[in-house]
Amino acid sequence: MTGDLDNLRVVLVATRNPLNIGAAARAMSNFGVGRLRVVNPYEAAFREARSAVGAAGLLAKAEQCASVAEAVADCRLVVGTTAAGRRELQHRLLRLEQGARAIKRHLKAGPVALLFGSERVGLSNREMSHCHWVMRIPTREEHGSMNLGQAVAVCLYELARGGKTAALKTAPGQKEKKSATSQEVERLTEMLLEVLRTSGYVKPRTVVAEERLRRLVRRMELNSDDAAVLLGMLRQIAWKVGAKE
Amino acid sequence: MTGDLDNLRVVLVATRNPLNIGAAARAMSNFGVGRLRVVNPYEAAFREARSAVGAAGLLAKAEQCASVAEAVADCRLVVGTTAAGRRELQHRLLRLEQGARAIKRHLKAGPVALLFGSERVGLSNREMSHCHWVMRIPTREEHGSMNLGQAVAVCLYELARGGKTAALKTAPGQKEKKSATSQEVERLTEMLLEVLRTSGYVKPRTVVAEERLRRLVRRMELNSDDAAVLLGMLRQIAWKVGAKE
Repeated sequence: MTGDLDNLRVVLVATRNPLNIGAAARAMSNFGVGRLRVVNPYEAAFREARSAVGAAGLLAKAEQCASVAEAVADCRLVVGTTAAGRRELQHRLLRLEQGARAIKRHLKAGPVALLFGSERVGLSNREMSHCHWVMRIPTREEHGSMNLGQAVAVCLYELARGGKTAALKTAPGQKEKKSATSQEVERLTEMLLEVLRTSGYVKPRTVVAEERLRRLVRRMELNSDDAAVLLGMLRQIAWKVGAKE
Repeated sequence: MTGDLDNLRVVLVATRNPLNIGAAARAMSNFGVGRLRVVNPYEAAFREARSAVGAAGLLAKAEQCASVAEAVADCRLVVGTTAAGRRELQHRLLRLEQGARAIKRHLKAGPVALLFGSERVGLSNREMSHCHWVMRIPTREEHGSMNLGQAVAVCLYELARGGKTAALKTAPGQKEKKSATSQEVERLTEMLLEVLRTSGYVKPRTVVAEERLRRLVRRMELNSDDAAVLLGMLRQIAWKVGAKE
């Protein structure tokens, strides 16, 4: 688990669907968040989620709490999530990007709770009253309410953003390909020109065609390996059409 | 639906679980992306997803395609997604943030396809060979593979991010050349393959060669005009080497 995110507690309140508990746990595992707390889940849902595959360790050590108060007791910042559709909010509402920045600052200092309400109604006013402020994923107004597992994933993605996982180099085991040298590109251009002349596509010694071809080949921005492969192809074609190399 | 995202096509390839098709559609609706294409879904899964609640309109007009080629034919940029765990990638790999920036630029000009592979194995090498490059959500290396519906949500969140701001203009007075469509690129690939077979460069019906060639041609990131010129050249060469068109 990565540094500051150790201090994050994901709190699922009154979740009904075991698949959503499982999905939340999986996203937590994907983004390096280890601490899950569940408040009043449907008992069967939690049992079923625990027996599900993936993120099993995380679910096994999930803490079951009797109330929101208990679930957030050790946290110095408590943040709710909402689709903020119909309801009048009593809380300050931040967009996810702003909220995530504030949460990241607090994570350096101590535990932060991030609350997700039930699938049907979200967080009740009573549950939300434990929050310092609430956060909203910027979805369309016409269809603001996200699936619970997807909302957890998007929030954790934003929180992990810029962190150690995000700083992973682009390609494990992948080398950056070297761009072809001008010499390689020019060799390719000449061979292509030769093939095109032999095939009757361009007349011998047409300067304009040669320049256009040169530009065209350069626009491909080939790497060295690809240039070599293409040159090999052209050699074979040249041999077949009877060009003199 | 919000401006540029109208040009995005979400393509689900060989999806098995109807819940995941439904979840993808819901995230699309949340973030204002209207066009879903499904390639070879498990037939029952697609039927079941269509009858599910939420995002019903979107699923009703989802297009069912027989192949990846068909699903991306009208797109000028095709991007795959991968957890990039075990497999050696043949493609350029970008992190979601970088990739999303590039996609947003292309969305201003024309259709872009974003491909998601099956739950179990992701995109096959063959399916991926239709992509210009691939993108990875920066998850932990120890548990990189995300749930399909969650991966779609995170990608679309990142693409919707920032909304109408960030207008990257091209140099004043310079027209942006349109990127070649996948159909144009595929036609070029096929013609090149035909010429290479007739020339004896590749053996007939060699699948690996075909996939490598497809990737190589896509790495050129050709514009429409250049693709047309190259196709014309290949036609002439094909005629000369006696390929049957």
